[in-house]
Amino acid sequence: MLKARAGGALPLVLALDSDASTPLHVRIGDALRAAILERRIARGARLPASRVLAEDLGCARGTVLAALERLAAEGYLTARAGSGTRVAATLPDDLLPAAGPSEAASPPASSPPALSRRGAALTRAPRHAYLAAPAAPDAFALGRPAPDAFPFAVFARLLQAEWRDGAPPPHPLGDPRLRAATAAYLSATRGVACTADDVIVTAGIRQSLRLLAHLLLDPGEAAFVEDPGFPGIALALVEAGVRPVPVPVGPGGLAIDRVRAAAARTRLAVVTPAQHYPLGHAMSLENRLALLAWAEAAGAWIVEDDYGGEYRYASRPLSPLRALDRTGRVIYAGSFSKLLLPALQLSYLVLPRGLAAPVHRALAETGPAPSGLGQGALARFIDEGHLGRHLRRTRNLYAARQAALLAAAGRHAAGLLEIPPLEGGMHLVARPGPAWPAGLGDVAAARACAEAGIATVALSAYHADPEAAAPGLLLGYAAVPERAVAPAVLRMAEALRAAYARP
Amino acid sequence: MLKARAGGALPLVLALDSDASTPLHVRIGDALRAAILERRIARGARLPASRVLAEDLGCARGTVLAALERLAAEGYLTARAGSGTRVAATLPDDLLPAAGPSEAASPPASSPPALSRRGAALTRAPRHAYLAAPAAPDAFALGRPAPDAFPFAVFARLLQAEWRDGAPPPHPLGDPRLRAATAAYLSATRGVACTADDVIVTAGIRQSLRLLAHLLLDPGEAAFVEDPGFPGIALALVEAGVRPVPVPVGPGGLAIDRVRAAAARTRLAVVTPAQHYPLGHAMSLENRLALLAWAEAAGAWIVEDDYGGEYRYASRPLSPLRALDRTGRVIYAGSFSKLLLPALQLSYLVLPRGLAAPVHRALAETGPAPSGLGQGALARFIDEGHLGRHLRRTRNLYAARQAALLAAAGRHAAGLLEIPPLEGGMHLVARPGPAWPAGLGDVAAARACAEAGIATVALSAYHADPEAAAPGLLLGYAAVPERAVAPAVLRMAEALRAAYARP
Repeated sequence: MLKARAGGALPLVLALDSDASTPLHVRIGDALRAAILERRIARGARLPASRVLAEDLGCARGTVLAALERLAAEGYLTARAGSGTRVAATLPDDLLPAAGPSEAASPPASSPPALSRRGAALTRAPRHAYLAAPAAPDAFALGRPAPDAFPFAVFARLLQAEWRDGAPPPHPLGDPRLRAATAAYLSATRGVACTADDVIVTAGIRQSLRLLAHLLLDPGEAAFVEDPGFPGIALALVEAGVRPVPVPVGPGGLAIDRVRAAAARTRLAVVTPAQHYPLGHAMSLENRLALLAWAEAAGAWIVEDDYGGEYRYASRPLSPLRALDRTGRVIYAGSFSKLLLPALQLSYLVLPRGLAAPVHRALAETGPAPSGLGQGALARFIDEGHLGRHLRRTRNLYAARQAALLAAAGRHAAGLLEIPPLEGGMHLVARPGPAWPAGLGDVAAARACAEAGIATVALSAYHADPEAAAPGLLLGYAAVPERAVAPAVLRMAEALRAAYARP
Repeated sequence: MLKARAGGALPLVLALDSDASTPLHVRIGDALRAAILERRIARGARLPASRVLAEDLGCARGTVLAALERLAAEGYLTARAGSGTRVAATLPDDLLPAAGPSEAASPPASSPPALSRRGAALTRAPRHAYLAAPAAPDAFALGRPAPDAFPFAVFARLLQAEWRDGAPPPHPLGDPRLRAATAAYLSATRGVACTADDVIVTAGIRQSLRLLAHLLLDPGEAAFVEDPGFPGIALALVEAGVRPVPVPVGPGGLAIDRVRAAAARTRLAVVTPAQHYPLGHAMSLENRLALLAWAEAAGAWIVEDDYGGEYRYASRPLSPLRALDRTGRVIYAGSFSKLLLPALQLSYLVLPRGLAAPVHRALAETGPAPSGLGQGALARFIDEGHLGRHLRRTRNLYAARQAALLAAAGRHAAGLLEIPPLEGGMHLVARPGPAWPAGLGDVAAARACAEAGIATVALSAYHADPEAAAPGLLLGYAAVPERAVAPAVLRMAEALRAAYARP
């Protein structure tokens, strides 16, 4: 608080912001404006001469002049030759905040803000552990590829090469080079015959689904989702005004009878045929063909989320639905973030021929959504063969890490956790064994693990009706080095056994 | 087309995909599956021995075995010791597509797809020139910062440094370092006192608005937008189910009477006070205070899009609404993409205190939207002073480029275009002069310019009622080197005069 000498007419207390990183003239101007707004200086009042103000504030006259000049430009002050600087008389008095100096210092909006109903719902929704990723520990967080396997130095070099001489403006459909590289990769390794024209780049499966739901369904329409299934899929549909209809999943995939029974009213189904997420088994050929036949008969669309289709350890990957689709009802979705590194935030859709043109038009309207910043570098990464090398390396790595988790669980959690091996993917599903504490729910179990520094997700959280779900814990292993597996399993087993003793 | 010798029981024509980039065993498997699905091979039929098939196809036996193994895994084939390989008998016949071989070769979905009503509307909307950015020429495209001013080598070096040793996982609120750097930048240069906790990183103004509209408004509610205004703002609101209510903009900003009259039913206003977009003038202090008073009284929110607030050539920037806001109703929005490079696709919101916690919760749910790929590098860029240097450099550069455009227009388009100088921003608004061809609308004029390789946007496209709008052309100059300005103006003037002669 600096007290200005009553130079001309004005005894004035200026409350200067003490943050020295803000230039002094800005702080003086802000304090002066605050004084005007708080009516501590009357409309039309004459200010002390700038020389006097500078003396009182202990700063250069130029500093004061800069502050006065800004407030004059803003309409708070008028300067006229001969009559000095005055507070503007034309300030709309009735609109001036009536706050006194004491209230003026209070922080804005201390009362809870008025959110919309959907806003309140959105901020009240239960948080899943996978969303708290930045702070979560590594073992056994879900959906994480091995960070130690990613060739950072290579990617850094490609990023620099890409940016050194300029960067192309973002393209609404994705960098054409990345679309071409993705098409080549999918054709060669996933049996998805496509060209760059069929591919669009997105920021993730959720953005992909929002786009498709907007284009293909009207608000209030329904879409089939798998139960259990990734909650983000249902959430993306809800965000687009679409009602997710959970369909139970058995060992062979979606309960196709439920799909057929509801067919007339539902024109979209989102499935994970390569490896059901989160249960991990593949959709049977019968179910694949039945689902395709349903889509054809109902004029419906199938979004095939090929999450993890790249990772099969025991046998060859099955052909994707897209390869079986003869009438263009399947939209194939994949992700580089899951395959390489979450920080890439790049996914893709392969559109059937008939859908490419309207999606292109829609994207030209809504503008580029996925960042173009790394797309060129990723295209080079694929073209230079680094993706193929990464896949071969991580297939072996993840198979070894799955084996390590199974071995450690057999040694340290026998009877407590029953973990069947899975043929692919990046996580396992642990079910309660006979030694599982009686009455311990999986949400409480996951919380107990989290308190011990182990990130797991309760399987019931992936069910439409968590109360009715068989309990389980989802254990991501891809990002956990083999030497870290056994200690983590030990900690988890201790935490679970201790959870037994609690009230 | 390869003809297989009738080795065991099966005369078989396999239509192999001719794309040599697909491994041969994949192509053989795909062709065999197609033959099964098309009933060219009956259920239960025995296949020729793999040795025979390999001979016929002119490939190694291992290649054929790989193809057969995959189809067996998929359930199409059964292999039993002694009886060879057969087409599975358990294939669900009724679900098999009945397509014959001729139809099988046709591309998927040649008929137009069934979009939803909103999907059809989304793909039918008129395309604005600014959205066709990738193919558009440089002079005088809108919303483009100078690519020649961006220090690519510096940013490339920072990207490499950031990625060489790993990259942090994406953070739902944005990289904490970027949030801190943004807060420091805004506090120092824009008079927006804030901390890292108040800042969230977004992928652009449209994503920012979608998020805010979801949180603050329910579907069917209304929000004020400026008329004229950036169509992307209204579109983002529509995408969130919110009804944009255009409010006419005069020289001092929004027609505040219209805002007041509708206040009870409208709880959000999106404005560009620093420089109205696209007209370029600043909102008067009276209007700023009146708008704040309205928001306070109505419990409404103001989104202050400070687009271009950094660029003022003739006088100091006015204080943002955010600096006048005493009750936490203002959400301040800015963009690094506009300031530095579109390829960054990074923007930000500064939230009032009361809104930070719910937005954080909502973002933790919806997951990270802006790419984290360049956020660390951008934070370093700001921290090392490159942003400040870039701003000082481009302020002079853009002022010179605006002057060059005004001079060239005076020389080559006198009477045709009347272009008042603007105190800030990155574009000018050209109005038809007396020599403007009679009856020429601005949309037709923009089209004529586009055909001559000059990108302009018709001002009427920014109006809620284009028919009633005064015509004009928006000319972005920031990305146009001075030497390129006069030739571009000449081409534009020629194109406009020639447009006169047309029927």
